[in-house]
Amino acid sequence: MDKNVLGTADIGVTGLAVMGRNLARNLAHHGYVVAVHNRTESKTQELVENHAGEGAFVATGTTAEFVASLTKPRKAIIMVKAGPSTDAVIEDLAAHMEPGDMIVDGGNALFTDTRRREAALKERGILFVGTGISGGEEGALNGPSIMPGGSPEAYKSLGPILEDISAKVDGVPCCTHVGADGAGHFVKMVHNGIEYSDMQLIAEAYDLLRQALGRSPGELAEIFTEWNRGDLESYLIEITAEVLGHVDAKTGRPFVDVVADRAEQKGTGRWTVQNALELGVPVTGIAEAVFARGLSGDVTRRQAARDLEGPIGSAPNYSLVDDVRQALLASKIVAYAQGFDQMAAASKEFGWNINLGDMATIWRGGCIIRARFLDRIRDAYAKDPGLPTLLASPSFSEALAEAQGAWRRVVSTAASIGVPTPGFSSALAYYDGLRRDRLPAALIQGLRDFFGAHTYHRVDREGVYHTDWSGDRAEHQEK
Amino acid sequence: MDKNVLGTADIGVTGLAVMGRNLARNLAHHGYVVAVHNRTESKTQELVENHAGEGAFVATGTTAEFVASLTKPRKAIIMVKAGPSTDAVIEDLAAHMEPGDMIVDGGNALFTDTRRREAALKERGILFVGTGISGGEEGALNGPSIMPGGSPEAYKSLGPILEDISAKVDGVPCCTHVGADGAGHFVKMVHNGIEYSDMQLIAEAYDLLRQALGRSPGELAEIFTEWNRGDLESYLIEITAEVLGHVDAKTGRPFVDVVADRAEQKGTGRWTVQNALELGVPVTGIAEAVFARGLSGDVTRRQAARDLEGPIGSAPNYSLVDDVRQALLASKIVAYAQGFDQMAAASKEFGWNINLGDMATIWRGGCIIRARFLDRIRDAYAKDPGLPTLLASPSFSEALAEAQGAWRRVVSTAASIGVPTPGFSSALAYYDGLRRDRLPAALIQGLRDFFGAHTYHRVDREGVYHTDWSGDRAEHQEK
Repeated sequence: MDKNVLGTADIGVTGLAVMGRNLARNLAHHGYVVAVHNRTESKTQELVENHAGEGAFVATGTTAEFVASLTKPRKAIIMVKAGPSTDAVIEDLAAHMEPGDMIVDGGNALFTDTRRREAALKERGILFVGTGISGGEEGALNGPSIMPGGSPEAYKSLGPILEDISAKVDGVPCCTHVGADGAGHFVKMVHNGIEYSDMQLIAEAYDLLRQALGRSPGELAEIFTEWNRGDLESYLIEITAEVLGHVDAKTGRPFVDVVADRAEQKGTGRWTVQNALELGVPVTGIAEAVFARGLSGDVTRRQAARDLEGPIGSAPNYSLVDDVRQALLASKIVAYAQGFDQMAAASKEFGWNINLGDMATIWRGGCIIRARFLDRIRDAYAKDPGLPTLLASPSFSEALAEAQGAWRRVVSTAASIGVPTPGFSSALAYYDGLRRDRLPAALIQGLRDFFGAHTYHRVDREGVYHTDWSGDRAEHQEK
Repeated sequence: MDKNVLGTADIGVTGLAVMGRNLARNLAHHGYVVAVHNRTESKTQELVENHAGEGAFVATGTTAEFVASLTKPRKAIIMVKAGPSTDAVIEDLAAHMEPGDMIVDGGNALFTDTRRREAALKERGILFVGTGISGGEEGALNGPSIMPGGSPEAYKSLGPILEDISAKVDGVPCCTHVGADGAGHFVKMVHNGIEYSDMQLIAEAYDLLRQALGRSPGELAEIFTEWNRGDLESYLIEITAEVLGHVDAKTGRPFVDVVADRAEQKGTGRWTVQNALELGVPVTGIAEAVFARGLSGDVTRRQAARDLEGPIGSAPNYSLVDDVRQALLASKIVAYAQGFDQMAAASKEFGWNINLGDMATIWRGGCIIRARFLDRIRDAYAKDPGLPTLLASPSFSEALAEAQGAWRRVVSTAASIGVPTPGFSSALAYYDGLRRDRLPAALIQGLRDFFGAHTYHRVDREGVYHTDWSGDRAEHQEK
């Protein structure tokens, strides 16, 4: 390495697979001098050779060179596979750094790992920033949604750079400081959970219209294109139209009919549900989406079950199309409400002080779940930062009131004609549960007291009670 | 302690809260000499004084005395709260034991803790048996369902005692060796998960009939009593009738109306779902049940949502009662099928060789989910031990074929009139998903490939593919 470049790079990126490479290029496009580094050095050379004209890169070989090339306080972004390799790279970097330097993990780390790493590096005086980055390859290159956690001190010098390279909507960067330690990776995880739910709902809408009305993928592409002009306007609806409209060149069949129907997953959806269970927050939409992917991949079981009896099918005698649009919108509102509930609960649990309206703001551009819809979420939290549930905000409760008739018809129809809509129906059940004055949970408490002496509360007085079910059935107040 | 009792006790119980006390008495009733021990010694004295006439107890003070009172190889059952206290008691006991001795954990430990403990004690030559025990206080005293894990060697001497004190159905003990290390606690966890699901479905049946038909709890008690004479015959249906029929003495109102409608939980349901997510097994019924409890306890959100719009309700113009019975039966079959799938997956993952038919057999008596129904599960696995899903076994697929019309009407009706039935509807969606030849997961794979280059498989040829969505949309085969 040329000695003249020592300490000249504004920021560094290590791990030059497609996401890291594109992020480095994005930084360079914005005028930053970017040190680049990769375990296999040829990748580093490749990047610099192929994209030299785009900006200022500093190719480095060893980790020592990489770190030495950075201006102090040093800022190194790690873009490697989440898990043990992240720990190895952190260790390697930290060994060459000084107090005040900064390591940024832009991978999809589990937030508890981020908390652990942040605490360990803090003891060594190194600032660690776990950062969610959403938007895929395209986003990384042209402006992703960025969700940095870590300390406010770290954000002070890092934040402006990240805001600079993030997507912008109405001039507002899709990047803000989320909260301390693992908060950034946490909200990225929930973002992905919502993405699972969103895609599951879209798949149900497509499936139901196809099964019930016999519409072809091409016709359905047009419907989704149309839907993308209204309240449902979003990146996922837009690309659904693209995918449904695509024809397989090899067979001339609709693309969606030649793809194997086994949805895969990388784990963030699962993590989201596991954490929601920990926090006690119902995220039924995300859970059903994760399980639906599991079911789709369970080929053995599905084959064993193919002869199970279905209804004597008859398509409904009205046009379902607009009903399904409304069911999709309403179910999507529930999915987002549940995801935001989970962020609120985690923020309280971990003391993150997450501004929920800000999360809606930074998801409006760059990321996979970007949607017109997020403006309304932002506005709802702007009006009432302590909003207990998005469903209660007037703009959403009115939308739900308008949609609920259609939503009920869709869930009824799907059940009648035998098309699975776990996302639509669990969202409706959540909506109907949440608005209930009394739920049948009192019966469950009674049963638990009966078989396990688990006690119960009463509606009309304080205290904890147990009924002597196997004796005289008198009620006793417990201490 | 009297020196004459040294080494005379067949087995010991430490931790004399109600479950431990009753288990010790059960052992004594069966002629075993039972050493008893508790951190607070007064509890030990109390037990021996109050129940001396029931059998032979050896009261012990210190842990050293407790261990010394046991015949070699020693067998000590721990009945303390799951978690760190279990570790403390194990450490304490092990310090006084010799190789070949045995520690039995009868609490509700997380199976991964049991695996860890078993491995650690094995290194010291001590046999560790994590054992699920179900049946509440009553069961512990008169015959619970017992699910011991640990080594076959440990079961050889411990098994006969546990089988002796377990419940019996048609002369068959509700106890068998489940599998190595944590297998016993694992199946107990799934048992509890199924129990959550079962109770949720019962609560939905009760709620729907009450809301739709205006039946009183007393009338509903009669319906459940009637149901308990048919296919639904089970302990939970039986006690549901008891709880619904019970009148609160303080107010003269139905008991179920004075109990606070916040269902509580101790964690095994949550663990079950978290583990199912890990294994990739859809357990939608258990997940919806856990989340429904969470929702019931979420008083702030429910209050904020009380004005959400409902349907302009009209009760259906036919009697729902028998339809609900069939929906309950069908949903319950799904819940059990999912739980058994989870045990099958874990058995494979951890090499436990769990005999699923045996699990149905030992749950027929003693435990909370005991039901007539389990005979059919046992028979199904006897006919085909490799059954991919219970739903595919003729006796269940026929029952589902018979019930599905009613089940669909129930889910439709609930959606129309605004009564939440997340358990019924998610079970139906699972059923309809499982029997589908093609699922819309192909669309999800297409979307994932579009935004994240996640690739897909094709139905008509081997390999992994990616379409260049942002370019010429040609398909490339990946390595």
